[in-house]
Amino acid sequence: MNRFVYLDNNATTKIASHIKEKLQPYLDLQYGNPSSLYWHGVKVRKAVEQARQNCADLINCNPKNLIFTSGGSEGNCSAFNSAINKYPNKKKIITTKVEHSSILEYCELLKKKGYEIVYLDVDINCNLNLKQLEHEIDDNTCLVSIQLANNEVGTILLTEEVIQLINNYKSEFSFDFHIDCVQGLGKIDIDVNKYNADYMSFSGHKIHCPKGIGLLYIKDTKNFTPLISGHQEFNLRGGTENVLGIIAIGESCKYIKDNFSEIQAKLKDLNIYLEQQLANMNITCNCKNVARIPNTTSITFDNITGNQIMFKLETFGICVSTGSACNSENSEPSYVLTSMGVKNPQNTIRVSIDENTTKSQINYFIDTLKTILKGE
Amino acid sequence: MNRFVYLDNNATTKIASHIKEKLQPYLDLQYGNPSSLYWHGVKVRKAVEQARQNCADLINCNPKNLIFTSGGSEGNCSAFNSAINKYPNKKKIITTKVEHSSILEYCELLKKKGYEIVYLDVDINCNLNLKQLEHEIDDNTCLVSIQLANNEVGTILLTEEVIQLINNYKSEFSFDFHIDCVQGLGKIDIDVNKYNADYMSFSGHKIHCPKGIGLLYIKDTKNFTPLISGHQEFNLRGGTENVLGIIAIGESCKYIKDNFSEIQAKLKDLNIYLEQQLANMNITCNCKNVARIPNTTSITFDNITGNQIMFKLETFGICVSTGSACNSENSEPSYVLTSMGVKNPQNTIRVSIDENTTKSQINYFIDTLKTILKGE
Repeated sequence: MNRFVYLDNNATTKIASHIKEKLQPYLDLQYGNPSSLYWHGVKVRKAVEQARQNCADLINCNPKNLIFTSGGSEGNCSAFNSAINKYPNKKKIITTKVEHSSILEYCELLKKKGYEIVYLDVDINCNLNLKQLEHEIDDNTCLVSIQLANNEVGTILLTEEVIQLINNYKSEFSFDFHIDCVQGLGKIDIDVNKYNADYMSFSGHKIHCPKGIGLLYIKDTKNFTPLISGHQEFNLRGGTENVLGIIAIGESCKYIKDNFSEIQAKLKDLNIYLEQQLANMNITCNCKNVARIPNTTSITFDNITGNQIMFKLETFGICVSTGSACNSENSEPSYVLTSMGVKNPQNTIRVSIDENTTKSQINYFIDTLKTILKGE
Repeated sequence: MNRFVYLDNNATTKIASHIKEKLQPYLDLQYGNPSSLYWHGVKVRKAVEQARQNCADLINCNPKNLIFTSGGSEGNCSAFNSAINKYPNKKKIITTKVEHSSILEYCELLKKKGYEIVYLDVDINCNLNLKQLEHEIDDNTCLVSIQLANNEVGTILLTEEVIQLINNYKSEFSFDFHIDCVQGLGKIDIDVNKYNADYMSFSGHKIHCPKGIGLLYIKDTKNFTPLISGHQEFNLRGGTENVLGIIAIGESCKYIKDNFSEIQAKLKDLNIYLEQQLANMNITCNCKNVARIPNTTSITFDNITGNQIMFKLETFGICVSTGSACNSENSEPSYVLTSMGVKNPQNTIRVSIDENTTKSQINYFIDTLKTILKGE
């Protein structure tokens, strides 16, 4: 059998075996509806609430402020929908050029309804310009939405300065603050109190859960307008609960909380190792010298496209990507790299490891990459 | 071990073993992101599209008109959201008093935004009054939303007359027509051409799939406004696909299509058997003599509440409900039964079988019910 080395963990991750084990009873006999009043339902309800507690513990919030969603995109759209309903007379939304497609597409829908959308610039390191942000926030602003970390280059956009600036202006003007935390969970220590955001969205399938589960933290649940109506999730999100997904994300959050230092140390060690090997090949990663999540390495080559490298690596059993999977059907070069001003953005691959990546796998990737580049 | 007899299949169903088998590879090694361009993702994409084809085959539509959602509630809210965006100048919505809570709650949100919501009455058999429907449809109507079958009493609301009336008026006035088909799938032969609706929503966990997956049929995809933005699902519904749920609902739809006559025959036989046993006890079910889905039996007692019966049955290992699980936290009597004008609605239980229910289980339920009623 060919070797299989998966280095695209920002696209999605393998379901962890400890999570898979937890799911088995819910695939089998524990199929009750969490809203049913008899024990067959109630015991599932209890498991759902324990999962919520575990997720809340990881980000240090009250479980009543945390709802289960179908993923990061639903969380993002829910936050936007709620903010515009909360401030019906404010018609300006500030976000960045490098947000996830769910946010950019939602903004385009709102633009058609008369909203002014400000897409903040980023520099070559994918950092924001504080002055531009400061200049744009005004009394007409209903929402500022900024991602915690970028999925293509790993830069942490929400620096302490950005957080402080937004919160200072929040006390001057009234607006909501949303953070797309999808690429941060499990890679950065996230405490809701640090950000003081109104909404924070998270996704399960980036942290070894099945696809189709996410979390949305909501600070002010009383003024929240649901995207999906119904009585579940404290009346904040309708629909019979995705029990398998919920059990998975609860287990994953517990695991991350219990093992955070080890996971961090492993990722950092592997990341340094990988980027050192690349440096030895005279390859410098994008955003090399800014704060990044410790699993993402973006590499732009001189004379070969990302697609060429990606498909050649695939023949050796190695999976990397050229950018966000959510935009893969688009043949244009990455809008993230283009916004950053990267020269030859189409010549880029993203390598995203997880804590189970081994140095042997990294060596195999590096050796294969050398072979490919030599062949050009 | 105590006997366990689950007669609450309208609340949720057990995951079928043939479905569980299909899920295993996707819990294990087939974890690629369907949007990824390498084979590890592409093979998952192919499985997702095969599942879509299987679902489309069951309801006889083009797979391009069918998107995967997180369940019936999301489908319902998506249809409403799209209809109001399609007709921004029309401010009237016509629905019924007996719709699912996701629809009733969404209507309340729209009412606050200035929409006129007409909740159509139902009679003692949960049938609509055609004259009222006819009277209400006008040029200001943007959406008519009527459930296919009621989850509490099983009545098929969308009779041929209702369908014809709506379609006649659709050619006179322009409005969208949505059908909540959640309780109909697998129990009635559903062909999209019969209804000529603009949207039809379906749920997986009512047909032996895990919770958290659904389908939305969209006739006019070009004029559809997504509830959740993003590039997945032909740009109609963002978010990384819930692969486990999709594989499950694809398998379930294929199974239903391949075995529809047998499932129907089994359900009808069991239903007649159950209601004959009840008749022998001088118990008449609600909506006895109207067209109903063949798995739902609603019984109203004279002198004992539904809750009392339900909890006593539970001590014998039998699960039934007093109404919709989605409203179980509400201690008021069922709004469905109240709208129908049922005397003593709080004295009602719902028995909902599936094709795996046995006559021996029905006998056990009947014997237990006799014991309980004798004890009163």
